[in-house]
Amino acid sequence: MGKEKKEGGNEKHKSEGIITKKAENLSDWYSEVVQKGGMADYSPIRGFMIIRPHAYSIWQGIQDYFNKVLKDKGVKNAYFPLLIPDSFFKREAQHAEGFAPELAYVQGSEDGEKLALRPTSETIMYDAYSKWVRSWRDLPLKINQWANVIRWEVKQTKPFIRTREFLWQEGHCVFSDEEGAIENMEDIIGEYQRLLEEVLAIPIIRGKKSEMEKFPGARTTMTIEAIMPDGKALQCGTSHNLADNFAKAFNVMFKDKDEKEHYAYQTSWGFSTRLIGALIMVHGDDKGLILPPRIAENKAVIVPILFEDSKTKVLKKCAEIAKKLEGIGALLDEREGYSPGWKFNEWELKGIPLRIEIGPKDMDKKQVTVVRRDNGKKEQISEGKVVERVKEILEEMQGEMYKKAEKFLHSRIDEAKTFKELEKKLKEGKVVKVYMANNKEVEAELKDKTGGATSRIIEVVSKEGKCIISGENVKTVGYVAKSY
Amino acid sequence: MGKEKKEGGNEKHKSEGIITKKAENLSDWYSEVVQKGGMADYSPIRGFMIIRPHAYSIWQGIQDYFNKVLKDKGVKNAYFPLLIPDSFFKREAQHAEGFAPELAYVQGSEDGEKLALRPTSETIMYDAYSKWVRSWRDLPLKINQWANVIRWEVKQTKPFIRTREFLWQEGHCVFSDEEGAIENMEDIIGEYQRLLEEVLAIPIIRGKKSEMEKFPGARTTMTIEAIMPDGKALQCGTSHNLADNFAKAFNVMFKDKDEKEHYAYQTSWGFSTRLIGALIMVHGDDKGLILPPRIAENKAVIVPILFEDSKTKVLKKCAEIAKKLEGIGALLDEREGYSPGWKFNEWELKGIPLRIEIGPKDMDKKQVTVVRRDNGKKEQISEGKVVERVKEILEEMQGEMYKKAEKFLHSRIDEAKTFKELEKKLKEGKVVKVYMANNKEVEAELKDKTGGATSRIIEVVSKEGKCIISGENVKTVGYVAKSY
Repeated sequence: MGKEKKEGGNEKHKSEGIITKKAENLSDWYSEVVQKGGMADYSPIRGFMIIRPHAYSIWQGIQDYFNKVLKDKGVKNAYFPLLIPDSFFKREAQHAEGFAPELAYVQGSEDGEKLALRPTSETIMYDAYSKWVRSWRDLPLKINQWANVIRWEVKQTKPFIRTREFLWQEGHCVFSDEEGAIENMEDIIGEYQRLLEEVLAIPIIRGKKSEMEKFPGARTTMTIEAIMPDGKALQCGTSHNLADNFAKAFNVMFKDKDEKEHYAYQTSWGFSTRLIGALIMVHGDDKGLILPPRIAENKAVIVPILFEDSKTKVLKKCAEIAKKLEGIGALLDEREGYSPGWKFNEWELKGIPLRIEIGPKDMDKKQVTVVRRDNGKKEQISEGKVVERVKEILEEMQGEMYKKAEKFLHSRIDEAKTFKELEKKLKEGKVVKVYMANNKEVEAELKDKTGGATSRIIEVVSKEGKCIISGENVKTVGYVAKSY
Repeated sequence: MGKEKKEGGNEKHKSEGIITKKAENLSDWYSEVVQKGGMADYSPIRGFMIIRPHAYSIWQGIQDYFNKVLKDKGVKNAYFPLLIPDSFFKREAQHAEGFAPELAYVQGSEDGEKLALRPTSETIMYDAYSKWVRSWRDLPLKINQWANVIRWEVKQTKPFIRTREFLWQEGHCVFSDEEGAIENMEDIIGEYQRLLEEVLAIPIIRGKKSEMEKFPGARTTMTIEAIMPDGKALQCGTSHNLADNFAKAFNVMFKDKDEKEHYAYQTSWGFSTRLIGALIMVHGDDKGLILPPRIAENKAVIVPILFEDSKTKVLKKCAEIAKKLEGIGALLDEREGYSPGWKFNEWELKGIPLRIEIGPKDMDKKQVTVVRRDNGKKEQISEGKVVERVKEILEEMQGEMYKKAEKFLHSRIDEAKTFKELEKKLKEGKVVKVYMANNKEVEAELKDKTGGATSRIIEVVSKEGKCIISGENVKTVGYVAKSY
């Protein structure tokens, strides 16, 4: 970098890079990236996390995007209480059974009743719905809330992926018939897929959950599942057709045009801060995070390459370029006392999509140097074209990140005809398509025999085959994998 | 309305208007407006509320506005855990004493420690700050969170005004010296004032809290207080200079340029969904809510005046005008089966700033009729000027709502020289300026003797006067009132 003395050689305040290789130990690598990348910190209480600003900006980006989707669909945001009377959980039998082990309660009781911290809000919302819904004129009712939820996990926790408190959105809609509910369930899972694919650049597999894996209290659950680098599936969002199960339990009824009272049909659907965990695992590399441009709050960082004799004019040029790129969310890292190399490492660790270097040599050529975070490709861009070209590069990067992840996903989907083959492929980190009966007994045995694998989605197919567990003839194929 | 048969005479599904007069019984009027105006509903658990979409849209408007303010100031959003180890509350003595009565705990314990639901997050955030802050380079640190908080109120609750759970923002900043903290405290209280005055059209008095009324653990608390129609003050936002009190309790230290370790200086500041309660009480009238245009998600509602023979063309015109007004957030109420009068009442109840009536007579004159919610003034606007004029009317309305509220506020501020005079003026619903010593003993006596009045703000003045309680000479003047 020339003979001149560089400013800012102070490497004492050093940013510590990632030590663990992603391919060698995914779990350790993940912990390091989460902490050193400034995404989350551990709380003094086991299983809870602090969502730091860098990660929270991703959550806000997701909220902004999805609030627009909700608005277009006429879904309105509201807020329901954190505390739910214990008796509410007992009204829908499957729901009660499903959530009982994870409920946390407030000390003492109110009017003789224990109060649970919400693990999900079907019960308290539908108690209100039973008062709000009177007539066919009140339907459809479409409400969403952004909230924190508490599930007292016994499994080992992992920031974003599995924590005792997380942030999420939960949508709860009411329709006059089951067709309306089914349509809504499918529409929303499609929106979730679009969010993952088009914004987060995460490819997914999508389908229905098996009897064992569906939401407690739902008739049907649809899911989107991403595949992590270790071949484990990560459930990224679910949408449920609750049919009239909860309407019967909570008395959500409406007078239809026939002047008679009918039970309503309902849906619920949600995704959580777990998406941030998916983003980290799918895109990150040995240098740290890689944020897809569309979700990055800061899409580029300008790093001045400073030498004593050209410092003033380079900083001036950097400010000028930063001003031009303000609209796309470019940062200017003018901090003194840090070398360019130190800054490069820090922004790589944090996954900012583009680095823009500007030094005296670039200035002589009236250009800037742009470096892509995902593949390290450098490109010189003439100053006059910087806004236009940076925008293009960001879109190229978004597309290529998706394609790379998609290629990986496809490489991990396989199939098996025998249980032995299934076991072998699971060990290779594959998601394995197998014929299996869609019932709890078969799936419990599958889970037991594979040491934890379950069907992530289950599909009805036209051609019959033998269930890999029971040997009976079935027309259902499961995508079997271990999962987070 | 002409001789033609009106469509939609179905008044069975009737919107129930407000029965109580605001001037006669503010408390009953408030409850009615909150419920019938679709703002909140009671939860099955005492002291908790459901924030319904109409009120939540106001909260989102406040969030959007304030998130821009935060971003401009370099304050970043994050999220800290709901549950806080009990021992954290005991580290700062005044804080512990102040919050102990309102703490709710989770059943059981974790690693032998009781876990409290956050009533505010100083303690858990500063525990993290003690790890994050190392050097002067890390300062200032500016973090905010939007969250739910739980305070187990024993006083009677009231939706938005006092509830056991509410939503708020809490900002927590760290500086290298107290000047930085003081500047931040003052800057933020100024931003709160701007939000109230310019967005919510709520005038306030602003100043410092007395020793008794300040935040537990703060050196200084600044407050903005709005005056409700009954003369009671409503604290709408506070900003605290915590000095190094919490830094010492939580060990928030940094190495300064002198290479020595120093305690940091901190601020915290917050406002809550209580602002929605202020909005309702300050602006509402006997017909229901009145939303200031700048915070109303829907700033106008178009109501077609339909007759059989002109129905199609009127609806077409309404759609055309609605399209033109899309950018300002206009609704088109095309619902069938409801008369225009019914719709007028409903939208008045909900406080939508403008009603735009379009009927065959308006069409003949190529005009629309605009009615302001706050004063009922009607105005005919020619179709070509509708966008421009509607925008103007909205701004006029915003300004006049503020002026009206400001006039009321000024009419309620008075002063007293004797305790008898103070008592009399408090009974008249005044906020009364009196000389009073700024100490806990005097204020406790004041509170006791007046049946609950306290100083809402306290000012240092140049001219000495006699304390209205102790008779001693003091240079401090309190604004005394009862409060919510």
